[in-house]
Amino acid sequence: MNPKLQWLRNKMSSLDLQGLIITNPVNIRYLTNIDAEGTLILTRKENIYITDGRYIEQVHSTLTLFDEIIVYDVHDVSKDDYENFFLFCENVGFEEYDISYAKYKEYIRKYKINNFVETEHIIEKQRMIKDAEEIINIQKACEITDNCFSYILSYIKPGMTEKQIAEEIEEYFKKRTDGLAFETIVASGENTSKPHAVPTNRKIQEKDIITIDMGCKVNGYASDMTRTFFVGEIPEEIKNVYDLVLKNQIQTQETCKDGISTRLLTKMVENDFKLNGYDLIHSLGHGVGLEIHEAPYIGISSDTQLKENMIVTNEPGIYIPGKFGIRIEDTLQITKFGCISLTKSEKNYIIIKNT
Amino acid sequence: MNPKLQWLRNKMSSLDLQGLIITNPVNIRYLTNIDAEGTLILTRKENIYITDGRYIEQVHSTLTLFDEIIVYDVHDVSKDDYENFFLFCENVGFEEYDISYAKYKEYIRKYKINNFVETEHIIEKQRMIKDAEEIINIQKACEITDNCFSYILSYIKPGMTEKQIAEEIEEYFKKRTDGLAFETIVASGENTSKPHAVPTNRKIQEKDIITIDMGCKVNGYASDMTRTFFVGEIPEEIKNVYDLVLKNQIQTQETCKDGISTRLLTKMVENDFKLNGYDLIHSLGHGVGLEIHEAPYIGISSDTQLKENMIVTNEPGIYIPGKFGIRIEDTLQITKFGCISLTKSEKNYIIIKNT
Repeated sequence: MNPKLQWLRNKMSSLDLQGLIITNPVNIRYLTNIDAEGTLILTRKENIYITDGRYIEQVHSTLTLFDEIIVYDVHDVSKDDYENFFLFCENVGFEEYDISYAKYKEYIRKYKINNFVETEHIIEKQRMIKDAEEIINIQKACEITDNCFSYILSYIKPGMTEKQIAEEIEEYFKKRTDGLAFETIVASGENTSKPHAVPTNRKIQEKDIITIDMGCKVNGYASDMTRTFFVGEIPEEIKNVYDLVLKNQIQTQETCKDGISTRLLTKMVENDFKLNGYDLIHSLGHGVGLEIHEAPYIGISSDTQLKENMIVTNEPGIYIPGKFGIRIEDTLQITKFGCISLTKSEKNYIIIKNT
Repeated sequence: MNPKLQWLRNKMSSLDLQGLIITNPVNIRYLTNIDAEGTLILTRKENIYITDGRYIEQVHSTLTLFDEIIVYDVHDVSKDDYENFFLFCENVGFEEYDISYAKYKEYIRKYKINNFVETEHIIEKQRMIKDAEEIINIQKACEITDNCFSYILSYIKPGMTEKQIAEEIEEYFKKRTDGLAFETIVASGENTSKPHAVPTNRKIQEKDIITIDMGCKVNGYASDMTRTFFVGEIPEEIKNVYDLVLKNQIQTQETCKDGISTRLLTKMVENDFKLNGYDLIHSLGHGVGLEIHEAPYIGISSDTQLKENMIVTNEPGIYIPGKFGIRIEDTLQITKFGCISLTKSEKNYIIIKNT
């Protein structure tokens, strides 16, 4: 059996679950590599994936014998089949954050489940720690993101619109990867003051400030990087804010390692911003993997201990409404004694030419 | 109060609901025009929309006094506020197909709800019948779709790829509307045999068959049209199938009117296909509105009576695996005594030039 499914079966034993219904498509992708619509069912003895005619062929070509997963077309599963899947199972787990209340009731009826048990994100928690293959995919995505950024710095000229630059980035990624990990942010001038700016038809001007937040996917795994840079020159008032953000970004990177509390990490940045008269209005970071935002979330409202081989972003930012914003973001791999920045683009002042 | 909310309040009375929590974003958009992330709460006296800082400004600019909706930032809603919203409410409704089991449990706790009641798609059912403004939006979307199709017929030349044609359609719609209603299908040659084909790099050839399924959105409302057409000439074996599909498409259109059963409609086409040795492997149609696929669904597995001012597609198709497929689809407005086809592009043989 593939090691991720084997891990999950061991976990089920320890939780006294004799069966499990997995519906979250990202978790199914994680466990099986299947990228389709369907349900993964772990019974006492078998791993079963139920899908429909549209996906059967594709699913069969994804799976190997080694996966030990039996694939069914949903139209071939009878009422009796459903009732037999969990026969003699006392406790069957489900993903309570994924299935609707209506599905919850339907499943209890259809599968004749005795005790339907919430599983509290067990798979999402495991997904926080990446294995060697996952890390390689994220490394590749980060490397291509660095290359794209260096290309785009040479591409941008005053007069181009934010949209045009975002489209060029999309094309770059589409040619080399599975495509965008998320909608690219290209914000210029006062638009940089919005953390989640959407590219507009605003044209790049001389003395502009530009923020680009971008990432791609390799074999389903994402990268995430932001740089803020300048056209021609950096206004003095912006320089001070840039220096403060960069100082905190570097300090966070130097502090990140196995065992560190994410809340502590965030507090450290928040305090330094406050000392200088600014607020941290956006979370400090988040996990990156099959999803662009996944656990752990690095902010004030929750706390997690960083662990070896977590992949997280480090993205402090200061946003001054109606004026400008600065964000500098890298994707980091946590190690026992520190961390490795997987995105490696320049973080000191970047100034592109006026013409 | 706006008439859609007023309708819903009357419906609540008749169902003995003193409160209602609406979470499905499309239903919220339908009732309030708000296009954001948040929750709409109808208490005994008030309509409340809870959102967060990202959307507050946009929501305020969407709403008018006439809507009678109070907007809260989620961060300003206290534990007591939640508990007071439904004070003295015996029954509070919720959307059981939309909220997760985890949210269901959270809401009962947070809002201190006595009896949390499933509402069985009440809003989706109301959304089936379009009002004058909704119909105007869909009419506009259909008109632009017709124009786009006539443009694209002049644009296509042998040697172009399916992807290239799909991108041209996307650009056409983006310039004139809110954009695509769904990912455009451009399928050529044997690719037409897949009802849900995704555009590939296959190049259009002489004597090709091409299926294009496309639609756009105007003020959030969708259009949906498919035409199958030919390059240079129509092979004889394809002609017969085209004639059969077109005959059934026209017959369906002539039969559609207030009071007709959707299952009967489907059976009629299925039988005629079977008589001629073919199967109806895809549903005959679906409602169109804020969503590209919404109730009513026109197929064998469910039954609805068509009603005046429903907007539905009429899309019989025959798909011969590995060879070719024919689908002809219009968006129809049901009337008391018949129906109006809102998409009006040519349905008889369309042949574009070889060069």
